[in-house]
Amino acid sequence: MIFLEKLESRQKKSKTLLCVGLDPDLKRIPDIIRNGKSPILMFNKAIIDATHEFVCAFKPQAAYYGAVGAEHELAETVSYIHSVYPDIPVILDAKRGDIGPTATKYAEESFLRYNVDAVTVNPYLGYDSIQPFVEYKDKGVIILCKTSNKSSGDFQDLMISGKPLFEHVAEKALSEWNQNKNILFVVGATYPSQMKYLRQLAKNTVFLVPGIGAQGGSVSEICDNGLRPDGLGLILSSSRAIIHASQESDFAEKARIVAKLTRDEMLAHCSF
Amino acid sequence: MIFLEKLESRQKKSKTLLCVGLDPDLKRIPDIIRNGKSPILMFNKAIIDATHEFVCAFKPQAAYYGAVGAEHELAETVSYIHSVYPDIPVILDAKRGDIGPTATKYAEESFLRYNVDAVTVNPYLGYDSIQPFVEYKDKGVIILCKTSNKSSGDFQDLMISGKPLFEHVAEKALSEWNQNKNILFVVGATYPSQMKYLRQLAKNTVFLVPGIGAQGGSVSEICDNGLRPDGLGLILSSSRAIIHASQESDFAEKARIVAKLTRDEMLAHCSF
Repeated sequence: MIFLEKLESRQKKSKTLLCVGLDPDLKRIPDIIRNGKSPILMFNKAIIDATHEFVCAFKPQAAYYGAVGAEHELAETVSYIHSVYPDIPVILDAKRGDIGPTATKYAEESFLRYNVDAVTVNPYLGYDSIQPFVEYKDKGVIILCKTSNKSSGDFQDLMISGKPLFEHVAEKALSEWNQNKNILFVVGATYPSQMKYLRQLAKNTVFLVPGIGAQGGSVSEICDNGLRPDGLGLILSSSRAIIHASQESDFAEKARIVAKLTRDEMLAHCSF
Repeated sequence: MIFLEKLESRQKKSKTLLCVGLDPDLKRIPDIIRNGKSPILMFNKAIIDATHEFVCAFKPQAAYYGAVGAEHELAETVSYIHSVYPDIPVILDAKRGDIGPTATKYAEESFLRYNVDAVTVNPYLGYDSIQPFVEYKDKGVIILCKTSNKSSGDFQDLMISGKPLFEHVAEKALSEWNQNKNILFVVGATYPSQMKYLRQLAKNTVFLVPGIGAQGGSVSEICDNGLRPDGLGLILSSSRAIIHASQESDFAEKARIVAKLTRDEMLAHCSF
């Protein structure tokens, strides 16, 4: 199934825009899990089972697996979601970007090895670094546009012919790279005014919005500035605030409570 | 030992600027290796043993391991180089770039898990995506500046206040991010005039230069435009043209021949 259809079908059916980031930090996983076998996989399964009804997507962050050699647990996590919750898409947050032949390998890593539905990519190297990803027509390719971090303005906000760099990225991606209609943008929750601007430019594009929760982005501001007229067009992602809401044995229960609260906050602003 | 000291000591002692990229493509590995155990590791060891005397660094490209689930073979490759050729530094070509807490995990992946001497990083997210890397004072952090691929101009060449974006990246990195003096730049061999320009701007910085060999960059032009007055300041990287010079059982011998030829071509232009 095409990623964007799978996503929007899930969003409408489950009335949620929430994406839970699976960024398991071993130091913050309860001892009872950390000291057992496959701690990251076990932790993820508990989080997935506890939060699934409130989410439209899960988003594992590759770095948290790479740092500790847990690629196998990442693959098993994706496989678990596809098998138990087949209507919930999985986004790999990898932010890859490399020259063509290497980008082809990264696309294989994301779509063939891990079998995720979508992946984040970095635009700094230009089109030939993106092309091998967009050629997978059924998959989503989520291009970093305006990121949520404090330093994102170092280069993304530099003005070129009256427009910031991130706007040039968005324009080029939509006008030249989107022949398969499978491009989305990363737009940080921490920059609502830039989001408003990008929504005017990219009326139909779905934005993956990290930065709610631990990073402090406001759900109501994001919904006001980023929703499309159909009430969709956003994937609001929270990681640490949900998955590490508790570091005790009640972590899954607490994750469920925070996920539900976050989803309910969205419901107050969105119309499904 | 500090990366830049290790690198330049090796360059002077072995009279070479050549870096061999370890980007093993399973499809191009001879059957006799591919059908055996740990084919990527066995292939890499043969290439390393055959070419080591002509190189100043080895550079595994993370994507070629990630695409086929060969992280363990990547770790073993790095470990093999450190153990058998301890004076040859290893550069992980990963081009990572993410928000601070995630960048911390990527830095751990590079420097703690794989124990490489240097890593490539992407500047699109700004300083907080680079800071966790540069904090490892003994390691090299190689920032993408002007990349070797055809589309690198899509954004890197956009003019901002009379200077291209890649020059803004270089200036910011040198003036604000380089307190540990461990920053290098990626400058593609395919853009010699931009290299000349960057050398004027970054008089002492070491450039990692991909794009000789299969991508067609000229060694003589690069040396003319990029060498520092001391005859160093460059790491000239070739991957496919060397490691896949033959796809038959003589691949290591052929790799050695091409590596020697490439090194000899450098020797004609460099003064050690």
